Amino acid sequence: MTEPFDAVDIIRAKRDKDALTDQQIDWLVDAYTRGVVADEQMSAMTMAILLNGMSRAEISRWTQAMIASGERMSFAKLSRPTADKHSTGGVGDKITLPLAPLVAAFDVAVPQLSGRGLGHTGGTLDKLESIPGWRASLTNDEMMSQLESVGAVICAAGSGLAPADKKLYALRDVTGTVEAIPLIASSIMSKKIAEGTGALVLDVKVGSGAFMKTLDSARELARTMVDLGTDAGVRTVALVTDMSVPLGRTAGNALEVRESLEVLAGGGPDDVVDLTVALAVEMLAAADRPTAEADVRAALADGRAMDKWRAMIGAQGGDVDAPLPVAKETETVVAAESGVLASLDAYAVGVAVHRLGAGRVRKEDAVQAAAGIEIHVRPGEPVVAGQPLLTLHTDTPERFARAREALQGGWTVEPEGAGAGVLGALGAALASSDRSVVLDRIG
Amino acid sequence: MTEPFDAVDIIRAKRDKDALTDQQIDWLVDAYTRGVVADEQMSAMTMAILLNGMSRAEISRWTQAMIASGERMSFAKLSRPTADKHSTGGVGDKITLPLAPLVAAFDVAVPQLSGRGLGHTGGTLDKLESIPGWRASLTNDEMMSQLESVGAVICAAGSGLAPADKKLYALRDVTGTVEAIPLIASSIMSKKIAEGTGALVLDVKVGSGAFMKTLDSARELARTMVDLGTDAGVRTVALVTDMSVPLGRTAGNALEVRESLEVLAGGGPDDVVDLTVALAVEMLAAADRPTAEADVRAALADGRAMDKWRAMIGAQGGDVDAPLPVAKETETVVAAESGVLASLDAYAVGVAVHRLGAGRVRKEDAVQAAAGIEIHVRPGEPVVAGQPLLTLHTDTPERFARAREALQGGWTVEPEGAGAGVLGALGAALASSDRSVVLDRIG
Repeated sequence: MTEPFDAVDIIRAKRDKDALTDQQIDWLVDAYTRGVVADEQMSAMTMAILLNGMSRAEISRWTQAMIASGERMSFAKLSRPTADKHSTGGVGDKITLPLAPLVAAFDVAVPQLSGRGLGHTGGTLDKLESIPGWRASLTNDEMMSQLESVGAVICAAGSGLAPADKKLYALRDVTGTVEAIPLIASSIMSKKIAEGTGALVLDVKVGSGAFMKTLDSARELARTMVDLGTDAGVRTVALVTDMSVPLGRTAGNALEVRESLEVLAGGGPDDVVDLTVALAVEMLAAADRPTAEADVRAALADGRAMDKWRAMIGAQGGDVDAPLPVAKETETVVAAESGVLASLDAYAVGVAVHRLGAGRVRKEDAVQAAAGIEIHVRPGEPVVAGQPLLTLHTDTPERFARAREALQGGWTVEPEGAGAGVLGALGAALASSDRSVVLDRIG
Repeated sequence: MTEPFDAVDIIRAKRDKDALTDQQIDWLVDAYTRGVVADEQMSAMTMAILLNGMSRAEISRWTQAMIASGERMSFAKLSRPTADKHSTGGVGDKITLPLAPLVAAFDVAVPQLSGRGLGHTGGTLDKLESIPGWRASLTNDEMMSQLESVGAVICAAGSGLAPADKKLYALRDVTGTVEAIPLIASSIMSKKIAEGTGALVLDVKVGSGAFMKTLDSARELARTMVDLGTDAGVRTVALVTDMSVPLGRTAGNALEVRESLEVLAGGGPDDVVDLTVALAVEMLAAADRPTAEADVRAALADGRAMDKWRAMIGAQGGDVDAPLPVAKETETVVAAESGVLASLDAYAVGVAVHRLGAGRVRKEDAVQAAAGIEIHVRPGEPVVAGQPLLTLHTDTPERFARAREALQGGWTVEPEGAGAGVLGALGAALASSDRSVVLDRIG
């Protein structure tokens, strides 16, 4: 077969800041998937995209081309509207766990195709697999049937959706080209659009523990993804949320399940509850089931969300009453001085959790269900010298040293009343948002 | 063996415009040569270098690292000083052929390690191989012995010099990253420095038929290479020369040998003679044998250069008296209108020559010795409608159509006396240089 384009010409066009044509984009993505365009050509291309950017039209076409590389799902046969949520990944981000059953409690179906953790951020599937018996892999029929009967499913994304993205993501990971906003946006949105959801709420994280380090870049990513969803006919909204500090008081697989259960039981840390509720309100509105925040909170307080959780986990073989795994060893990190905890760096905590065994270095690595960190003091709270700040959990105590290394300089204590620096890495941006976890809404 | 660096960190550093350390550069080039750094990582790196540039210190270290990847030669044992010339490649650029014997006639040894053509520019070895019996491959001992006895040698560069460059060049060729000045400069200079010449004159071409399209970029490349040579202790000078128009009146392998013989016989087109003499004067000066231009011209007129040519070609098995190959078919391109030929685009001619069979698409392709183009009218000369402008030569007449396609719009005819546009693609730059082929000197 004769190819209509030469990859080098297309790379040169982007290198020289020329706009790519629809035909060039379609061919490039397809030819890369077929192996006609080599990895070394695509990586030069992704670096050129990272440094020279892409227009809205180019990103939209690129996303469509990635969708076209695989199968498309449809939830049109379900008796209920669907709403999906995607987070760009953070530390302690267990929101999907309480959120999916919470939204399902309002008769909106939540098909949550999730991934595993890579790098310092955790993966939803890894967290749920700490529940004895729970399985992540469902067939399409099993997923549809569970969505109809329970209304919520969290499972592994099939490999049939956007295979071009799968190949491209692996390439970007080893070539320093993960951080390109057009590529992040099209990677996420190609899978979400192919999945066929009618409504999508994006949780775009910003701060040290997120891929986006500045509010500007997070807003740009959010705007880019909302545009992509809108262009593809999906009702899409994005919340830009704080990831300078870990979410809640736990990071790690089973530890986060435990905290999610607290939220589903009507308790749990304020920031986790607030973000869960904010996202649920957006999802319900996007799915044409507008619901007041107070009503959403009520479903956590009165056990309706917990009932959905039990049904959802049970349907995938999980034993909801079995005890969660507990780490063989723990160590406590104590405060050296008294005052107010001014900051707790999400990235440092994420890396430490990873090093304790909760994350993986290579895709094929296993994770420790019980490894992780409990956070006893959160930024803004008072602390006394000698008081426990963190408890580190692992099954393999030789990991403590490197986890402690990652935590070095990971928090600051200010004299009580000083007030300075208490706002964490995002500084002014957080100050103006009154320390709410939700910093902005785009859509 | 544990590697001291992660390629992704080094790619990210260049991507984010951080300066690379000596240790990072040394490791990256070495690890790429060893296959530890993958092609897709290096191509992302070369795109980042192309778009973000490199400092003089980085380029210098990168060049040293490429030299360190292979063997180094030395001409220290020769009884004469050495001088080498390198051209960045153009259309009709046969200068090496008369130049090497001309300089050798003044008792300076010329070790000319040359390459083959790829793309629209010709290769010196391809040209000489149109001489019956001539062989390009010499052992190091054969080369040294010929340099001592004859004083000039043009042969294939051994694969032992800068193998990192060989691998990197092949990668750049398929990833749209050929045009990065730091990489072009380090590629050329790593081989030239490893070769061990004491003096080096660079012919940096600019214009449509060259890699550098603007005078600024050509000057930057020239300055970068002169700096690299100087830093490495090689006396280095660069001439920036016009490649908006083909050099001389022929382009193609045997056709260019024929024109070179005219120059060696004291005739030939002015531009070819002027550039040959200008480069010879620079080489002799750089080799500490300063010689007046008139004396150099005399060696062409009185047959001393021709004698060296005969000895040089004969030493490598070439039959200097055998007839050169002649193409089986020719076609003439005639002028459609009368006036003055205002421009003749070097790139269009180069592509047409390539399509006639003189060049190769893949490294392993064979070239036609007799294919090429004769130029009957050069820019600035009058032309009458119906008069032959070009003669196309090939052994395979099915190639004429695509060659003519390449020539479409490749020249302009202006009414006599109009004066406008006669200066070709470089416009003002050429105007100020009074149409001399040499536009600038850097060193």
